[in-house]
Amino acid sequence: MTTTSVAVDETAAAVARYLDVRDHTERLAAPLSAEDQTVQSMPDVSPTKWHRAHTTWFFETFLLEPNVGDYRTFHPAYGYLFNSYYEAVGERHQRAERGLLSRPGIDEIAAYRAHVDDAMQSLVATVGVTPLVELGLQHEQQHQELLLMDIKHVLSRNPLLPAYSGDARHSPFHPAALTTSRPAWTGHAGGTVEVGHDAVAGSFAFDNESPRHPVWLQPFEIADRPVTCGEWKAFVYDGGYRRAELWLSEGWATLHANGWGSPSYWSSSDGDWRVFTLAGDRAVADDEPVCHVSYFEADAFARWAGARLPTEAEWEAAVAAGGAATGRGQVWEWTSSAYAPYPGFRPAPGAVGEYNGKFMVNQYVLRGGSCVTPAGHTRTTYRNFFPASARWAFSGLRLARDA
Amino acid sequence: MTTTSVAVDETAAAVARYLDVRDHTERLAAPLSAEDQTVQSMPDVSPTKWHRAHTTWFFETFLLEPNVGDYRTFHPAYGYLFNSYYEAVGERHQRAERGLLSRPGIDEIAAYRAHVDDAMQSLVATVGVTPLVELGLQHEQQHQELLLMDIKHVLSRNPLLPAYSGDARHSPFHPAALTTSRPAWTGHAGGTVEVGHDAVAGSFAFDNESPRHPVWLQPFEIADRPVTCGEWKAFVYDGGYRRAELWLSEGWATLHANGWGSPSYWSSSDGDWRVFTLAGDRAVADDEPVCHVSYFEADAFARWAGARLPTEAEWEAAVAAGGAATGRGQVWEWTSSAYAPYPGFRPAPGAVGEYNGKFMVNQYVLRGGSCVTPAGHTRTTYRNFFPASARWAFSGLRLARDA
Amino acid sequence: MTTTSVAVDETAAAVARYLDVRDHTERLAAPLSAEDQTVQSMPDVSPTKWHRAHTTWFFETFLLEPNVGDYRTFHPAYGYLFNSYYEAVGERHQRAERGLLSRPGIDEIAAYRAHVDDAMQSLVATVGVTPLVELGLQHEQQHQELLLMDIKHVLSRNPLLPAYSGDARHSPFHPAALTTSRPAWTGHAGGTVEVGHDAVAGSFAFDNESPRHPVWLQPFEIADRPVTCGEWKAFVYDGGYRRAELWLSEGWATLHANGWGSPSYWSSSDGDWRVFTLAGDRAVADDEPVCHVSYFEADAFARWAGARLPTEAEWEAAVAAGGAATGRGQVWEWTSSAYAPYPGFRPAPGAVGEYNGKFMVNQYVLRGGSCVTPAGHTRTTYRNFFPASARWAFSGLRLARDA
Amino acid sequence: MTTTSVAVDETAAAVARYLDVRDHTERLAAPLSAEDQTVQSMPDVSPTKWHRAHTTWFFETFLLEPNVGDYRTFHPAYGYLFNSYYEAVGERHQRAERGLLSRPGIDEIAAYRAHVDDAMQSLVATVGVTPLVELGLQHEQQHQELLLMDIKHVLSRNPLLPAYSGDARHSPFHPAALTTSRPAWTGHAGGTVEVGHDAVAGSFAFDNESPRHPVWLQPFEIADRPVTCGEWKAFVYDGGYRRAELWLSEGWATLHANGWGSPSYWSSSDGDWRVFTLAGDRAVADDEPVCHVSYFEADAFARWAGARLPTEAEWEAAVAAGGAATGRGQVWEWTSSAYAPYPGFRPAPGAVGEYNGKFMVNQYVLRGGSCVTPAGHTRTTYRNFFPASARWAFSGLRLARDA
Repeated sequence: MTTTSVAVDETAAAVARYLDVRDHTERLAAPLSAEDQTVQSMPDVSPTKWHRAHTTWFFETFLLEPNVGDYRTFHPAYGYLFNSYYEAVGERHQRAERGLLSRPGIDEIAAYRAHVDDAMQSLVATVGVTPLVELGLQHEQQHQELLLMDIKHVLSRNPLLPAYSGDARHSPFHPAALTTSRPAWTGHAGGTVEVGHDAVAGSFAFDNESPRHPVWLQPFEIADRPVTCGEWKAFVYDGGYRRAELWLSEGWATLHANGWGSPSYWSSSDGDWRVFTLAGDRAVADDEPVCHVSYFEADAFARWAGARLPTEAEWEAAVAAGGAATGRGQVWEWTSSAYAPYPGFRPAPGAVGEYNGKFMVNQYVLRGGSCVTPAGHTRTTYRNFFPASARWAFSGLRLARDA
Repeated sequence: MTTTSVAVDETAAAVARYLDVRDHTERLAAPLSAEDQTVQSMPDVSPTKWHRAHTTWFFETFLLEPNVGDYRTFHPAYGYLFNSYYEAVGERHQRAERGLLSRPGIDEIAAYRAHVDDAMQSLVATVGVTPLVELGLQHEQQHQELLLMDIKHVLSRNPLLPAYSGDARHSPFHPAALTTSRPAWTGHAGGTVEVGHDAVAGSFAFDNESPRHPVWLQPFEIADRPVTCGEWKAFVYDGGYRRAELWLSEGWATLHANGWGSPSYWSSSDGDWRVFTLAGDRAVADDEPVCHVSYFEADAFARWAGARLPTEAEWEAAVAAGGAATGRGQVWEWTSSAYAPYPGFRPAPGAVGEYNGKFMVNQYVLRGGSCVTPAGHTRTTYRNFFPASARWAFSGLRLARDA
Repeated sequence: MTTTSVAVDETAAAVARYLDVRDHTERLAAPLSAEDQTVQSMPDVSPTKWHRAHTTWFFETFLLEPNVGDYRTFHPAYGYLFNSYYEAVGERHQRAERGLLSRPGIDEIAAYRAHVDDAMQSLVATVGVTPLVELGLQHEQQHQELLLMDIKHVLSRNPLLPAYSGDARHSPFHPAALTTSRPAWTGHAGGTVEVGHDAVAGSFAFDNESPRHPVWLQPFEIADRPVTCGEWKAFVYDGGYRRAELWLSEGWATLHANGWGSPSYWSSSDGDWRVFTLAGDRAVADDEPVCHVSYFEADAFARWAGARLPTEAEWEAAVAAGGAATGRGQVWEWTSSAYAPYPGFRPAPGAVGEYNGKFMVNQYVLRGGSCVTPAGHTRTTYRNFFPASARWAFSGLRLARDA
Repeated sequence: MTTTSVAVDETAAAVARYLDVRDHTERLAAPLSAEDQTVQSMPDVSPTKWHRAHTTWFFETFLLEPNVGDYRTFHPAYGYLFNSYYEAVGERHQRAERGLLSRPGIDEIAAYRAHVDDAMQSLVATVGVTPLVELGLQHEQQHQELLLMDIKHVLSRNPLLPAYSGDARHSPFHPAALTTSRPAWTGHAGGTVEVGHDAVAGSFAFDNESPRHPVWLQPFEIADRPVTCGEWKAFVYDGGYRRAELWLSEGWATLHANGWGSPSYWSSSDGDWRVFTLAGDRAVADDEPVCHVSYFEADAFARWAGARLPTEAEWEAAVAAGGAATGRGQVWEWTSSAYAPYPGFRPAPGAVGEYNGKFMVNQYVLRGGSCVTPAGHTRTTYRNFFPASARWAFSGLRLARDA
């Protein structure tokens, strides 16, 4: 009896966990019209309805088709349309052309999700939240953040500057104001520290967070809060975007090629700085963490400020030691570390092994999390990554310096 | 009494004429979902909902705002979003970015159309179908054809090859099979002929069709029907796309840059030729006029066939004399004439003067009409035009040769 | 005796004619260093040494190899390297990569020229200046003009602004000042006129100038001199480059894409206009014909001036009637005519048939000749042609208007 | 007396050292014609004469102008033309346009070098080989290697496949065959090791090699020789360039965009592999180190071989411990390390501080040296770097693996 009811409880919890993540995607998409969900505003961006389908395809491809004998594939072409980059799974539709697909429409995609959820509920009820199910859920959470990043970019390209939802002054999808007026520095003694996920612990982590391993650090200091919009304005006013000596050479070229003069989504008219948010356009608030800056800009700002970006090992060691406390989780924080495998890294066998390892070149690691990251998705060892020129992520920075 | 009832009849006819054209646009858009109406598959293509809004903007901008004192503009930003190329009317949204606009959605655009139609009905009931109203209606008919051209391109980029509507074997939006098996040549004696629209006649024509003027022609012959798909296959099998000597130099370069080996929308597998139509994918039918070929291809085919394209004056003179009879109106027929002003051409004053004249460079004239041209829209003097590389129009060819 | 000595004289004259044209190329190249002769500054431009080799290749390929049994080809790879566009002669080196060839160097090319000239002298002494030899010489004269156009562009890209040769105020390779201060209009009654080369006459003309044929013209007037730099400044100061209504749509886009604000090779600082010439940089002279303007600019200027460009038939008829007299031959004069075959045009058989016909699309005709055209090269029926956006030719304009 | 003669000897040695490096550049340029020295075959490549001038500009700008009161600058525009990337020194000519400069020619550049050498000899005789003089010489040595890399690329683009000099089977500028037939693995115990240049030692090193610092390493093994052409062929034959699972995602995209199927400079016909060398075209030799592979290819090969690239710290630790012995200095060896500042790195103040630091993004470190590196230029701590897609450096690889 007890055993059974525990099992029933566990089953219910597993299914609930599955549905909770899945439903969250639908709640995020709900404010968006069929038209909104169709547009792709640049190759890096995917349409909302593509995210809804692709996350579903993951479960269909990696869980249902291999494991459920009588599973009926929803549509034979969806494997081609909604594969993102898994080469081992076969040919796929070009990323830059996702916005050309008017069909399947949002109703068919809702039906696709329902079809897969139905089968997945049965599977999860039987096998629980296996590591691969968990990977699917974590994958979907990543796309929940991407969905918001992407629709923000889409809406920003519309001269009407339409809002995704809500009140621009109190949006949950915008970094919150910080309460500390001046940054303080927390010291760290350096030496050999352990970083990375301890696989023994049993909790979920992506493969790129392992193995846990020692790293030698020099003594350093790290700021207790991220850089704010007010500080960024000071950088702008001090000629930050016009002084070559502050910039990496490729950053300087990128700045000129794109005409950068402020963070992405900022605009100005006679010193009146505005920012486009998911709740519409409003004034830049000085006490909020700056957001939507590239690695190049973060690096230039740090140089201007007489500081530097932390390495990812410094960042992790500082957080593990209780530092870097304020404002964490508001914006992803650029580190100076190129995204690379940890010593002894092994990708998983098969297609899911393509999840992380194949992107380990020409990307830089960000740590922490952001205001559009789903609750509970990140941890101290979590490694996010983007190219140095990317600005559509909710990316900011925290300063560090040699002790 | 009689006068009044005539006036009433004329008023009703004017309003009916206005609504008939307007409603036809809505009927064409009706089979398309919100997603379908949002996509722009290349810079030349506009989303369906953009066509619906832009044609409405024409009436609002050129008829209602200048003439109806209490007219309330539907939305202040639509003038910016839905202006196509009228520089005199102000700034405008970039053509290549029309597909980035998820909003206004199709419901708002339907409301926009209703709002303008309401005001226009009153105006037309008062003033009748004035020349500018007629221009607006003719303009809308041109966009009805563009709407079909554009959505065909959009749907063709989808690997699912979805149909716009109907049965692929009997679609009204595909060239009909010809009954003559072999082309016959009709001779014309040449000499001085008059071409162009006779403005005195009072019927509508675009400004580019005037003035009527004399042209000297050498004796020539013209085919009685357009080139067919069967003939085009013979060209392909004879190495038509691989023999440089058949091609204009720029055509040869364009062929290589784009990998052309058959008309647009054709595909083949082991000699099985398929064609994508607005009613879906089906086999190429040999007795249909070939369609979706560029000027470069038409010119190369004609050279291969030991013939040439007619000039637009030859074409018009032949038709006026009763020649070139079969299959006319199935596909637009490329002529060898660069699009240029007729002697004495004067654009209309003001913004509508931008309608035609500013495009008179690097384009070639097509004559006749196509299976997607609205009924009654064209006439013998009608001049359509596209760049030599364009293939998304319903463009074919009719051969000519020196007598 | 007399017959023989006449023949001897004719032979000597033929050889002298051949050598005179060939030597002129070498005289034009003489002021240029090995480095100067190697650079290609844009795909349209060819290196000087390439021109020297390509013109030689023409004689080797079309005269010596087919006709001289014991002719020894100078180098087996030169056919590949120095073919310009004759598809029928085989594969060829990419035009845009001509500047990548450091070898053969100028000494080897001089040896190539000597080798071919040696064999050609024998051939010409035997057969005289046959039509194909004449074509080779006319071809070389065209490249003499291209050589100067091209090296001007090359030198202009060097911040040192080096001179090709001479005194910038009195260069033979720059349009001479005009003596008439105000343009006068010469009328023409229109009607049927004959244009084109009369092949019966026996003198040389390119295939594109034939057949001579009737054209119907409306009455028109044409200016007695080209537009001057002083007039062009007035256009600039009147906002000519900022007023969309003056421009063809594609011209306006081209202006913006390239940042045009004045003719090519002009620069300004505080209203001080400078022009780069083959003899170096100097002030713009108001009374000189304006030069290095595109078709788009010429068309916009004409519209601004309340006039238009002449058609090529108008131009030729006016000149034949003694009009358009002053300043002709200083700058090529844009006409409004797209480059197209004359009625009954037949390209020559074989590879030389590719000489002109295959370029008859998306180009506009220029008439007259320029200060860098070799003496005696042009005639009233001569048809030069360039794309509407080209500015590196010595191209200006002469106005016309309806009578 | 002794002191003086020591000083005299030291002076003579300093001048001799200066002239030896300078003359080596001229010896490398000597086989090249004026035409050869002018061509730029891609933006990454600089013309030979530019290298000769730029290295001279370094001495003029950083040594003579600041330190020699009566120094007469050779030409006022050379600072603009021959500055490579030092933003602090002012505006500079665009890198991609270096091949547009026919002037100054090679004779003027020889005069420039003589002028600067004359003044530098006096300066060096007075102050000796100061750190900044030494930096200038090391800089010139780097350009000696670039000169050979670049001219190889230039000549390779010529269909004649001309040789720079020498006999293709015994060129000093091609990797030498290795004597070991099978690679052996040398183990390293890992732990904390010290890497980087020890500035106390006094010998020259670039700023990017300091500070020396501890790094924690896991145990690893490294191959005793680089990968050979024979091994690379096995990779090719095993589908190495067609198997997505072997490649980083960006590498796979780069492969497709560029059509890679073998190392740069290789070609094949029916299994007969040829390689273009500075001494001309010849057969690929199986026992030579493979060369001109990108980071992406090196990484894919290592994965195919069941190994990986070493980190730069592993590479340096292994060499310091006497490992990785055979074939070192034949080809630069890709490491898996992104190019980043060492902990505590400080660029030099002023313009020379731009030497290295500003390139520390999106580049990967190579270690060792190559057959075109000047003798004595490198050391164990030397860090070369290129983007992951670069192939025109003499770059190969050495495998490593976890112990």
